Amino acid sequence: MRTISENRCFGGTQGVYAHDSQATGCEMTFGLFLPEEAAQGPVPVLWFLSGLTCTHENAMVKAGAQAHAALHGIALVFPDTSPRGEGVADDEAFDMGQGAGFYLDATKEPWAPHFRMERYVTEELPKLLFGEVPLAEEQQAITGHSMGGHGALTLAMRHPGRFRSVSAFAPICNPLESDWGQRQFEGYLGSVEAGRVHDATLLMAERGLDAPLMIDTGTADQFGDKLGTAAFAGAVAERRAEATLRLQKGYDHSYFFVSTFMGDHVDFHAEALWA
Amino acid sequence: MRTISENRCFGGTQGVYAHDSQATGCEMTFGLFLPEEAAQGPVPVLWFLSGLTCTHENAMVKAGAQAHAALHGIALVFPDTSPRGEGVADDEAFDMGQGAGFYLDATKEPWAPHFRMERYVTEELPKLLFGEVPLAEEQQAITGHSMGGHGALTLAMRHPGRFRSVSAFAPICNPLESDWGQRQFEGYLGSVEAGRVHDATLLMAERGLDAPLMIDTGTADQFGDKLGTAAFAGAVAERRAEATLRLQKGYDHSYFFVSTFMGDHVDFHAEALWA
Repeated sequence: MRTISENRCFGGTQGVYAHDSQATGCEMTFGLFLPEEAAQGPVPVLWFLSGLTCTHENAMVKAGAQAHAALHGIALVFPDTSPRGEGVADDEAFDMGQGAGFYLDATKEPWAPHFRMERYVTEELPKLLFGEVPLAEEQQAITGHSMGGHGALTLAMRHPGRFRSVSAFAPICNPLESDWGQRQFEGYLGSVEAGRVHDATLLMAERGLDAPLMIDTGTADQFGDKLGTAAFAGAVAERRAEATLRLQKGYDHSYFFVSTFMGDHVDFHAEALWA
Repeated sequence: MRTISENRCFGGTQGVYAHDSQATGCEMTFGLFLPEEAAQGPVPVLWFLSGLTCTHENAMVKAGAQAHAALHGIALVFPDTSPRGEGVADDEAFDMGQGAGFYLDATKEPWAPHFRMERYVTEELPKLLFGEVPLAEEQQAITGHSMGGHGALTLAMRHPGRFRSVSAFAPICNPLESDWGQRQFEGYLGSVEAGRVHDATLLMAERGLDAPLMIDTGTADQFGDKLGTAAFAGAVAERRAEATLRLQKGYDHSYFFVSTFMGDHVDFHAEALWA
């Protein structure tokens, strides 16, 4: 872990660190907020997965999460959204390649050698962090925005028992039926069908989620037709999963929306993390 | 006023607007947060002046002010920090020219035709806003960061009776003695001496401030030697002005510092605005 920057923030420290990743075969950068309680011992941790085009930085500076995390003595991790660098494959479209890892492990060229974001986020980065930072491994929660909401939902369902609570802001939750999913599954995995195990709606229908869930999506979301909110809501209701799904009047897809409801989400996670 | 964007945010609206400015002879862009109470009638307004290199956007997306303003039913205005555009003079240094207007009216070439930020912020933009937006002209407060803290302090003392409360984050408050001041006064006004009437420490000594004041500056501020905090603190104490000056342990000059204490500042202004 190389320190890129550390800034005092709400009584704790907002750091940015880089490390060489074996999972992605390149240097990866992430943000880590440690509340002041971390000086006394391990603290619970909330993962925040970001959306298309974002780096580790967007949510870290725009979501306002640190204020709420500090109140509850919770750490925040902001991973990057994909491998990056000159030797890493990319695409002209903003929703494929660098900045658009979709939190899965690619199996097809030219993506396979680097695009292993599921392994990175669920194995390598946790191993690094729990080894070097005072974080309580048994007190983890996960959230995310847009493609990062897809990541939060699918990783939680694919890794049962890991997260005590799960939430998302305007998540892509039925990518098998969306422009934000079909092309990516075809490219990264070889077929749309191969993405079935990375589709939150299908995962909810077939496996379910073993933790309480909370989702906020704006009624004025400009990407509403790509999210699959209705299909996912149906799957949740069908399964009678413990969940709060809110459609927030007039809100769009921006960080102004995310920051507005961040306090509610951190409160929700704090209740599960400190239970 | 041309609408650039409007996003729902904490129950209100975060807008960005542009207009042709006579004061600066170019198009100017600003951010405006209106709380939901503005739908019922005029609301109090807190001006936020930004620092070197910033546009209207930095504080609007990074300071977390809307959350607190919404709680108190207060509007926020985020002006740009200088005139901009191809026909506007500039300098290779980041602390002179575009992005570095210093909230004064330049009298010397090549700056004079456009760099009239005092007139813009204290006359033209208020006239536009109070004419077109439900803001209560008799309920104004002002704050700012770094060069914008300089702006908040000096404009409040140069325009007595206008602001009910004044605050600043890591303000430049003795520019006559600083790299952030001397070169700019010489360029914009023809001499360092001409900047005496734009130096917060001298203004405090000679005129004083007719409103309660609150200042936060970090003890780890990387620009601490340019701010003149000690001189200003001395002038405040000398005058026995109503003021709270806080040195915050370990905090630097970043927006992580600003956002940490934004809630305290908005609470402070709300008390004066709603008195």
